Formats: sequence, structure tokens, C-alpha cells
Amino acid sequence: MSWDDIEAEVRASFARQAMMAHLRVTMEHVGDGEVRLSMPYQPEITQQHGFVHAAATTALADSACGYAALTRCPPGSEVVTVGFTVNLLEPAVGQRFVGVGRVVRAGGRLTVCGGEVYAYGEDDVKTLVMLMQATISRVKGS
Amino acid sequence: MSWDDIEAEVRASFARQAMMAHLRVTMEHVGDGEVRLSMPYQPEITQQHGFVHAAATTALADSACGYAALTRCPPGSEVVTVGFTVNLLEPAVGQRFVGVGRVVRAGGRLTVCGGEVYAYGEDDVKTLVMLMQATISRVKGS
Amino acid sequence: MSWDDIEAEVRASFARQAMMAHLRVTMEHVGDGEVRLSMPYQPEITQQHGFVHAAATTALADSACGYAALTRCPPGSEVVTVGFTVNLLEPAVGQRFVGVGRVVRAGGRLTVCGGEVYAYGEDDVKTLVMLMQATISRVKGS
Amino acid sequence: MSWDDIEAEVRASFARQAMMAHLRVTMEHVGDGEVRLSMPYQPEITQQHGFVHAAATTALADSACGYAALTRCPPGSEVVTVGFTVNLLEPAVGQRFVGVGRVVRAGGRLTVCGGEVYAYGEDDVKTLVMLMQATISRVKGS
Repeated sequence: MSWDDIEAEVRASFARQAMMAHLRVTMEHVGDGEVRLSMPYQPEITQQHGFVHAAATTALADSACGYAALTRCPPGSEVVTVGFTVNLLEPAVGQRFVGVGRVVRAGGRLTVCGGEVYAYGEDDVKTLVMLMQATISRVKGS
Repeated sequence: MSWDDIEAEVRASFARQAMMAHLRVTMEHVGDGEVRLSMPYQPEITQQHGFVHAAATTALADSACGYAALTRCPPGSEVVTVGFTVNLLEPAVGQRFVGVGRVVRAGGRLTVCGGEVYAYGEDDVKTLVMLMQATISRVKGS
Repeated sequence: MSWDDIEAEVRASFARQAMMAHLRVTMEHVGDGEVRLSMPYQPEITQQHGFVHAAATTALADSACGYAALTRCPPGSEVVTVGFTVNLLEPAVGQRFVGVGRVVRAGGRLTVCGGEVYAYGEDDVKTLVMLMQATISRVKGS
Repeated sequence: MSWDDIEAEVRASFARQAMMAHLRVTMEHVGDGEVRLSMPYQPEITQQHGFVHAAATTALADSACGYAALTRCPPGSEVVTVGFTVNLLEPAVGQRFVGVGRVVRAGGRLTVCGGEVYAYGEDDVKTLVMLMQATISRVKGS
């Protein structure tokens, strides 16, 4: 399978995630073992202090990790998240948020990824706001 | 401060979380060191297999843990999540989802909580779909 | 296979762990989906403040979780830990330490367990010092 | 305080950890926000399959993270681990094991670190066997 096919599979799966549209997440980049997603600031995804809610930044990081894992799976595979750990490093304040997922170790069935979420301010300065360690399982595929 | 005041503080903070309205989460129960939140199934919060997205169940569990911690903080406190770990145990399939947060150990500044998310099916049978371990920090309050 | 056979398998595997002897850990109880291990205070397993080192309490909790998972696996199975999260709740001060592992959800291949470590003082009062959430994988067995 | 003083503080604290001597861990490198520890293979720290026990590799990664955090704290500080997550990526097989701890974000009180453990084989080829995400708290110091 060519890289174009892999990227097409990843983008098709992403397009089927209604939650991504609900949070206005778009797929910025699909690379070999690395995926970047982007989400604009929206008042409706904030928590009680006006920062973006950890659930929204978790969505970014978790999906980026899952799709990063999928780029390293055999054709026709599907993946589900087994679990993840996040640390919230700074308040998620910014105009847009970028989630990065990166494969650390791809195994036969389980893949471990590292994820990050960056907040971009007015001046486009970025701040690391979340760190994730995720375990992804392949559930289908030869 | 009376318990009614504590519950009123928790509910007021919850009402300021726009994300909770966006995901149609309601506060079911506020007890001493234990909070339950509820969220109906909605097609717009699903992932690529049609299950409810981990980010939505994370929102339930994380917020339940944070508010459980807040019930054990001094009056006027506010809390933020330092981090959490989740395990996704079963596909989040159901008509509604209930997140439970429970204080395991309340310290001076950090509180550790256990969280769970249950999916309720047509017959009201419940399935445990997510397990969380969360660390919450008090950021204000005497 | 009878329960006696399962317990014998668990105890035989435990006996093969040289690390358990090195830390003077003994197996206190093997139940269906729940295992308890015990470790005495020893000056050589302390950290810089004289408390028992997190690595030693981790050994207790991780092994208790792994063997709890093994009690729910098919005969002839072996298990390895995929990963775990710990929160250190109190300084590990005491005369002996008991690690408990409990199956939360046993799946086809992955089992999620909750673990705890308690410190027992002179008066035999116990304090919860560590909370663990562990993911265990079956690597062999029909 | 000069860097030499910081390194001396770190090494003095490390020397007070009896557990490090018990596992024959030595401090290989103390850098600004990064610490490396080394541990030889020893039959007494193995688990039931003959691999080095996760508790021993956890000791390496956790201590490396804690001391990495300490290099970024004010003079006279002490640190304790709040919690950590590990993923075990490969069986810990090798002649020696190196734990690396690296500060990801140093906050006022809490520091988040990333940790890794590498196994070195006969040919000195290294394999990443553990990934850690740790939260460290400063408990003393101006």
C-alpha cells in the first residue's frame, strides 16, 4: 500500500468521528508515525475559569495519538485507545490549539504514543499545555 | 459553612462550565466527597465506530472527580486538574452515561480521586466503560 | 481446573520472581481476582527521607495486580504488565506494607486492575499510601 | 548558587537513598533538567520470566525524574514524587539499564518530567524498555 493510501485511510476514519466536527477539530498533518490536529478557541468548550476544557484538549491529543498509531498499522487496520495519562501543564488559553501524536513504540498489537497539546496566542507564540502518554490497540487488520 | 452552601458552590461552578452544556452534561448528585454527572447519547459526540468518544466520557469522569474534590476543600476554594489516567474498558455504547467521582485522599493542596463512567442501555443495565485516577489541585481558598 | 490448581500456579510464578525475595515480599492471600502481598520495613529499601521507596511499594502493588489478573486467566496463562499509574498519597512509613491487587475488568487479552498499598504502624493502624491503576496482558495460555 | 553546588546537592540526596545502593544504581550524569542513572543486570532483581522487574526499572526512571526536577528547584529544596505513569515497551533484557529523567515543565510547586529506561545488550545496542511521565512536587525550599 502506498503512503497516499495510508493517509487516505487515516483521513477517512477521522472524517467519521462526529466528535471531531462537534469540537471543530481539523487534521493538519498526517506523517509516518506523527499526526497533528488543530482546534480553534470556542467559548462553548471552556471550563469554569474560561480556559479550554481538559476534555477538549484530551480529544485533540488522544485522536492525534490514535491516528499516529494507525499510520504504522497494516492496511485495513482499525485502532482503539486502551488508555492514556495526561498532565495539564498550563491553562489552555489561546486562539487555537494543536494536538500532536507521535509513535514511541509500535508493537504487534499495542502501540505506545506520546502526545502534546500546544496553545497558540495572538502573536502565534506557542505554549505546551498538555502532555499525554497513550496506549493504542489495533483491533482489526491483517 | 453548611452543606447547602458547599453544594451551592459546586453547582454554581458547574454552571459556569460551557463545555458541560455543549456536551449536555447535567449534575445528578453532589455528596460529601462524591459527585455524579449524567450525559445522554448524542450522535455528535461519537467516534469513528459510532461509540461515544473517549473525550466525552473523559469530560464526565474528570469533572465528577474535580467537583468531588471541591466538596472537601475549604469554602471559597477553586480546583484545577493536575492530571489523570484513564482506562477504556468497554465501548461506550448506551442511551446515557453516568460519571462518578470519589475522593480517595484529600491532602492539603492535592486531592486524589477515583472516577468511573457507566453506560446505561435500553434495559437500564449498566456497564463500566471507563476507570479514572485523577489528581486535583486546590488553587484558591483559605 | 480447580481453584487449588489456580492458586498453585500463582504461587509457583511468584516464587520464580527473584525480586520478590530481594525485597522480602511474601504472598499473604490469593483470592479469585484479588491478591495481597506483604513486605516488612527494611532500612535498605528507603529513599532520602527515610521513607520506603516508591519503587518498593510499586513492586508490591504491581505484582499484586499482575497475580490478581492471573487468577482470572485460562489455565497455563502467563501475564506481563503493559503499564500502570501510581499516586503516592502519604509517606510510606510503617513496620510492614501490604499491597492489594484487584481485577476491575478482565477482558480477552487485557485486564485492568486497581491496586493499593497500605502501611501498618506499631499499633497496626493502616494508612493508604499508594493507589495504582494497572493494565495487564495475557501473553500465553489457551 | 553555582551549578557545582546544585550538582553536589543532587548527589548528596542520591547518596542518602538506601534503595539505590540496594539495587546497585549509580548516578551517571547530572545536567540542567536532565539526570541519568545506571544499574547493572543482577539475577536478584528479575521477575518470573528472568527479565529485570518493572519495580527496578521504575526505580531508575522515577529517581532520574525526581533528580532532574531537583536541578530546577531553588537551593535547599527537596522533592517527592506525586505520581507517575509507566508503559513497559519491551522485556527488560540486557547487561545494564540506564534511566533518563528530563524536565518537561517546571512550575512553582509541581514539575512534570518525562522518563525513559534503556537496556544495553552485549554489543552495547540500546533498546527503549520503559516510558514514564512523572509529577514531582517541591516540598521544601525558598
